[in-house]
Amino acid sequence: MQRKIHCVSVITLTTDFGTADWFVGTMKGVIAGINPRATVIDITHDIPPQNVGAAAFALAMAYRFFPERTVHVVVVDPGVGSTRRAIAVRTARYFFVGPDNGVLSLALAREKIQSVHLLENKAYFLKPVSRTFHGRDIFAPVAAHLSRGLPITKLGPELDKFVQLPHVAAVRDRGKVTGRIMYIDRFGNAITNVAETDLGAGELGRAQVILGPNLKCEIANCYSAVAPGRLVAVFGSTGYLEVAVNCGNAAEQFGLRVGQKVSVRIRRD
Amino acid sequence: MQRKIHCVSVITLTTDFGTADWFVGTMKGVIAGINPRATVIDITHDIPPQNVGAAAFALAMAYRFFPERTVHVVVVDPGVGSTRRAIAVRTARYFFVGPDNGVLSLALAREKIQSVHLLENKAYFLKPVSRTFHGRDIFAPVAAHLSRGLPITKLGPELDKFVQLPHVAAVRDRGKVTGRIMYIDRFGNAITNVAETDLGAGELGRAQVILGPNLKCEIANCYSAVAPGRLVAVFGSTGYLEVAVNCGNAAEQFGLRVGQKVSVRIRRD
Amino acid sequence: MQRKIHCVSVITLTTDFGTADWFVGTMKGVIAGINPRATVIDITHDIPPQNVGAAAFALAMAYRFFPERTVHVVVVDPGVGSTRRAIAVRTARYFFVGPDNGVLSLALAREKIQSVHLLENKAYFLKPVSRTFHGRDIFAPVAAHLSRGLPITKLGPELDKFVQLPHVAAVRDRGKVTGRIMYIDRFGNAITNVAETDLGAGELGRAQVILGPNLKCEIANCYSAVAPGRLVAVFGSTGYLEVAVNCGNAAEQFGLRVGQKVSVRIRRD
Repeated sequence: MQRKIHCVSVITLTTDFGTADWFVGTMKGVIAGINPRATVIDITHDIPPQNVGAAAFALAMAYRFFPERTVHVVVVDPGVGSTRRAIAVRTARYFFVGPDNGVLSLALAREKIQSVHLLENKAYFLKPVSRTFHGRDIFAPVAAHLSRGLPITKLGPELDKFVQLPHVAAVRDRGKVTGRIMYIDRFGNAITNVAETDLGAGELGRAQVILGPNLKCEIANCYSAVAPGRLVAVFGSTGYLEVAVNCGNAAEQFGLRVGQKVSVRIRRD
Repeated sequence: MQRKIHCVSVITLTTDFGTADWFVGTMKGVIAGINPRATVIDITHDIPPQNVGAAAFALAMAYRFFPERTVHVVVVDPGVGSTRRAIAVRTARYFFVGPDNGVLSLALAREKIQSVHLLENKAYFLKPVSRTFHGRDIFAPVAAHLSRGLPITKLGPELDKFVQLPHVAAVRDRGKVTGRIMYIDRFGNAITNVAETDLGAGELGRAQVILGPNLKCEIANCYSAVAPGRLVAVFGSTGYLEVAVNCGNAAEQFGLRVGQKVSVRIRRD
Repeated sequence: MQRKIHCVSVITLTTDFGTADWFVGTMKGVIAGINPRATVIDITHDIPPQNVGAAAFALAMAYRFFPERTVHVVVVDPGVGSTRRAIAVRTARYFFVGPDNGVLSLALAREKIQSVHLLENKAYFLKPVSRTFHGRDIFAPVAAHLSRGLPITKLGPELDKFVQLPHVAAVRDRGKVTGRIMYIDRFGNAITNVAETDLGAGELGRAQVILGPNLKCEIANCYSAVAPGRLVAVFGSTGYLEVAVNCGNAAEQFGLRVGQKVSVRIRRD
């Protein structure tokens, strides 16, 4: 029932479990018992509790830097123990496992989906399954079995659809791009949904980023293009426009928050 | 002197070292130098400083989800450098290594102990042993040697007894179970010592959980059985009754704390 | 172009990225794609943002507990995207990779340097290299290639010099050693630059540590040599004098801070 055991395989974990308790450790213990050769990599466990949107964004930014066949597991699961479904998804390059609450959907929107399966086959769960910790009892063992080569079809019936979060893209209207802040990172940088491709090749030098009536900045090539303490915007490692303060914390200094509107105006020179 | 080197072996770490300094990393460096094939899994490093009880509880909740022969290391060690003893324990399924201050005792109370050994043989320590960091200089190298198959008898003489924390079980008296809060997790859920087996099969639906004169709730099958913001009790992933707030933080909202009394009253229908 | 792939190799990571975002996870994903057999060990990701000195100190305290040939990567990089250089260094026992801002220099001051190379060969970078995340796009892939046996000379031209932080040693003047606090750890212990070798063999029992007019203590063999809540100094696991409070937090209790002067006076008996 199991195909060739791959020499090395990667499983990533993204959760809101924090690292103060034993939750993440026990998930890794379960995985080690099923596939001792899996390399488990934490994306993050500090998603704000039950914040499905933040987890979906973090996964979407991170997943493609992992080797092909990586099994990406996300457990941000406010509905655990209720009737919400759990799914595994095979795309052209990866596997994804998690609750069917949209948390996988931003990454899946960028991938070529091959099939979506309901997690139903209890043969691949721990026994008994607890009411509150499907990360340990369902998602970890299912991911470990997939990483060993278990065909995804064994997990449960194929589904036609799955829950998708609204995908918010920035809008270009002639000389103006309108977007919003999607995520505040640990440095206080505000990551927007304004993509580098929303601007034309020669437009960077003529762009002004507007966060409020008195809060504007230019787009530069690096944070240190401005003096320490000054606001600057950079197309960052995500491919999106990030608003930062050189040697400082933009979100704290200027009260930036997720959902806030950002516009980029292109000057006609 | 060393038996067969196992292809893959697991070592878990539970400490109060936090992750802001280099302490945990150096323990893993020491392990990698002795057994490069060991898989090291963090249970947690955020035990409140020197809180032996919290570490003992975390280990007791987590250890059994790891593969057989896992070496569980706990370093919460207020007495480091004093005359407190350090021990290694072999049970039917696992190894345990740590200071002899009770931190291993809640897990050991659930296991079939085969032998307890004093850590005395300096051949398996780093040289020199520092005064303040036995995690790096004694516990990490001893665990790495055990994970390679070193017979535990090589570590030091067998001991008749070891320090045990008082084991507090909930008490059932006719229609009432009296227990207490053992641990507050990252979600603010209060984990009690009331076990699912303290209640009879048909009693869940007739149970009322009492935390104070005006603080009561029912036992449900999942957090989301009540409206967001409402108190609920669930037999959780630990096997014990956990008091939670759906989509909220019960400990903060209701000022719950470790040691607080909890009772469960069974209504006669 | 690549030499023998080592069966197991270690890469350490020291950054100020925190663990709340996906940054560290993506670095590990990149490494897993290039060298699936590398064991990646976190030294810490909680260096205060852009604090090059704290990162340099943490690396200097930790690096030598890792196996030979370990590749130590440090990414604390306020100048990312500017013209600051990036380097790889081969010493007699290790490799070091990071920005050329002094962050490697305290460790390198203790090692026998063989060669320093500019990171210039884009064949070993991700494509494209982002403006803000050289940890993922340059340092992680370069480290992974080194861990696979890539000759360091392939990375770029050899350099004559690199940026070095001022190395501050304590000063002994007859019966007095004058130093300062270098680092405050998670327990609130203040680690100084007063080395055990700054004192003579029989002097420990006659030494008084002076942190202020009314803040003095003795040097003991362990924290618990004094009553709980009392100040004590111990030559700790770093080899340096650490000022601590038994069962407490010395930095909080006495307002200790990095850079603060510490002196040790030897009584004539």
